[in-house]
Amino acid sequence: MRAIQVGLIGWGTVGCGVIQVLLDNAQVIESRLGVPVRLKRVADLDLERSRPVKVSRDLLTDRVEDILDDPDIDIVIELIGGTGVAKNVIVQALEKKKYVVTANKALLAHAGNELFRVARDNGLAIGFEASVAGGIPFIKALREGLAANQVETVYGILNGTANYILTRMTEEGLTFSDALRGAQEKGYAEADPALDIEGTDTAHKLAITSAISFGTQIQFDKVYTEGLSRIDPLDVKFGEEFGYQLKLLAIARRSGDGIEMRVHPTLIPKDHVLASVREAYNAVYVHGNAVGNIMLYGMGAGMMPTGSAVVSDLIDIARDILGGTPGRIPALSFLPDRLRDIPIKPITDITTCYYFRFAAVDRPGVLSKVAGILGANNISIAAVIQKGRQMEGAVPIVMVTHKALEKNVRLALQEIDRLDVVLAPTQLIRMENQETGILY
Amino acid sequence: MRAIQVGLIGWGTVGCGVIQVLLDNAQVIESRLGVPVRLKRVADLDLERSRPVKVSRDLLTDRVEDILDDPDIDIVIELIGGTGVAKNVIVQALEKKKYVVTANKALLAHAGNELFRVARDNGLAIGFEASVAGGIPFIKALREGLAANQVETVYGILNGTANYILTRMTEEGLTFSDALRGAQEKGYAEADPALDIEGTDTAHKLAITSAISFGTQIQFDKVYTEGLSRIDPLDVKFGEEFGYQLKLLAIARRSGDGIEMRVHPTLIPKDHVLASVREAYNAVYVHGNAVGNIMLYGMGAGMMPTGSAVVSDLIDIARDILGGTPGRIPALSFLPDRLRDIPIKPITDITTCYYFRFAAVDRPGVLSKVAGILGANNISIAAVIQKGRQMEGAVPIVMVTHKALEKNVRLALQEIDRLDVVLAPTQLIRMENQETGILY
Repeated sequence: MRAIQVGLIGWGTVGCGVIQVLLDNAQVIESRLGVPVRLKRVADLDLERSRPVKVSRDLLTDRVEDILDDPDIDIVIELIGGTGVAKNVIVQALEKKKYVVTANKALLAHAGNELFRVARDNGLAIGFEASVAGGIPFIKALREGLAANQVETVYGILNGTANYILTRMTEEGLTFSDALRGAQEKGYAEADPALDIEGTDTAHKLAITSAISFGTQIQFDKVYTEGLSRIDPLDVKFGEEFGYQLKLLAIARRSGDGIEMRVHPTLIPKDHVLASVREAYNAVYVHGNAVGNIMLYGMGAGMMPTGSAVVSDLIDIARDILGGTPGRIPALSFLPDRLRDIPIKPITDITTCYYFRFAAVDRPGVLSKVAGILGANNISIAAVIQKGRQMEGAVPIVMVTHKALEKNVRLALQEIDRLDVVLAPTQLIRMENQETGILY
Repeated sequence: MRAIQVGLIGWGTVGCGVIQVLLDNAQVIESRLGVPVRLKRVADLDLERSRPVKVSRDLLTDRVEDILDDPDIDIVIELIGGTGVAKNVIVQALEKKKYVVTANKALLAHAGNELFRVARDNGLAIGFEASVAGGIPFIKALREGLAANQVETVYGILNGTANYILTRMTEEGLTFSDALRGAQEKGYAEADPALDIEGTDTAHKLAITSAISFGTQIQFDKVYTEGLSRIDPLDVKFGEEFGYQLKLLAIARRSGDGIEMRVHPTLIPKDHVLASVREAYNAVYVHGNAVGNIMLYGMGAGMMPTGSAVVSDLIDIARDILGGTPGRIPALSFLPDRLRDIPIKPITDITTCYYFRFAAVDRPGVLSKVAGILGANNISIAAVIQKGRQMEGAVPIVMVTHKALEKNVRLALQEIDRLDVVLAPTQLIRMENQETGILY
């Protein structure tokens, strides 16, 4: 009978959550594990800042070495964030034979392959449940609960701030900038919200998700990413008229002999269960070849939900320590020597359905001209809305297409946007529906 | 390098699913595990019946002993169903030092405590992911992914047939019996559908879920159960007018110093994400004290989804075999000697909101009489609908209440149903909403 000893580096919001969960739930954790999980040391450069959770003075240190060099500490929790110091801390912890738990998706997206190798070389493992979809036990579901499956598609709503903004735009008709201001006032969005709204945070999570889903290395640089800032409330409205709702979707998909990895605003059918994911909630919708469609839903961020994921990782690793089975589950779900090299499709090679909003001059023959160019590029129109509604002098013509090749779509829009009856660049939003595949 | 050898007993629909998953996904399974999972023997009394999945003749046997006595077999999959033979087979397999995987909720609800003890006594474990919510990796989420939490509430839609019937009643206004007939034609409901529609199957799953959620023994005999057969399309309609949707809900809840375990038709707010669970899908909505609200959604039955859960269990157990860590996760999430004895509340002690439909004579003063009796029993009315709509001579008066004690509700309804202006027994449907707790 012993205790699992933990050192926490980075005493911010998530760190407070971890400490709170360990305090509140010490008894159930010990009931599940048989031994207590004990927080031995907390390191942060700033020990004075006021925080929602207090820590006894003698646990605190401003030197990471006090954790890294402590032979009693079994597991190091890295909550520094970023890709610099955090990486060094993780490498050092592993080399000093300590397990690591992290919530750092940016770091794993950039350096996960290397870090997992260092862990393996040292006979250890890194827990990273908190790095994707926060409190939702999604990494566990993918690597273990769905282990019998070939994953075919993952659709993720992986950024709570972005989803909150889209919820406000959808339900209250707000503009993007007003909705963003609201999110900042609510404390969801950072003062510099670029990571959230430009899709980069979602792309970090998608890179990790895709690797685990398909058994490949993490390839963040190959994720295609578009953010929300170019979305106009008009698009939300017209989307609704076509029966769709707008979400910032992360999509990982096996497609032919390649993989698609893309993050962009996406119109999805409004009666789909993913459309019911409102406010700051996250969700992942997975299609596996045996299980069919699965969705996991919950809070993707926040002090306590993220704390829940980190501490569940601690419990899992504690079980490996007690059982003598380090790295029981391969980091990327496939064993390292079985990881596959599957080409990532460039965005121009994908085939999907599209929503276009053209800013056209209100003059006879415009629709026919636009439609002609689409047709010549093999793009077939599924529905059109043309209304008198004003849009800075132009009339919006809104269309949704059948499946088309992105390469052709880009050629067609270039040509269309050069027409003198088209007054502004055409808005393009990709769609998911029964025609594009297996969203249902 | 070796193989994990498996014997399957009970070659029905789920058995076919397991065989199909092992065939289709042999490569990914081996990529995750490092060794193959090999189906060594399939036993069934009837080897002649036509089935959707073929098995090589030399794997087949009609004698369970050919599996139980085969020293090469590591894991026995029990898919016989029922609580008789199946139990003997599992006990024998464990005593012959074989791990067990089962989808048998009825058996676990009745004899799980005993079977888990036999497994433990033999240094083994029983995988039962498929027994609750089919393909959804819910047992894994509860026991591992949410292990850092004190679970406070679980709401489950755990029977696909019942949910399919309610979807038809809600979306097409069908009567219960027409919707049931449709489900039977679609192959969802058995010729004798009692287990599904009377809530017993859901109650089996709830008993298992509750034990894992709260760290207690399985106590199936204490689950309060009501089925769907008494639901009238009128109730679906009126529920909608109040902003609610009808679901057959399994509820496990910590409440004061006790636990509620109940299965009954329940009105839930129609904008809640659980209300978006349509057709034969299942979902579980969990509130944990750290993670907040989590929902898992997917197919709760069917050949391939259930096969997915069974084979994921095989992989998990294979990892325990390879790592030498049998019973790494306690069956009921808490270690056996930490299981708690928490009283189960009788239904009369619960407090919730109610929907009543009174069959009243259309005469002045009836509403006041009914309301008076409710008031005298401490039941406060939140909203009323009284319309001219005909109901076999009577006028329906429909009410929803604030939170009230079930004991008081029963006393009040007894008194009301004795009034000569009330022509038929009052319909009672329990509700969940923000007032009853933490559904959001």
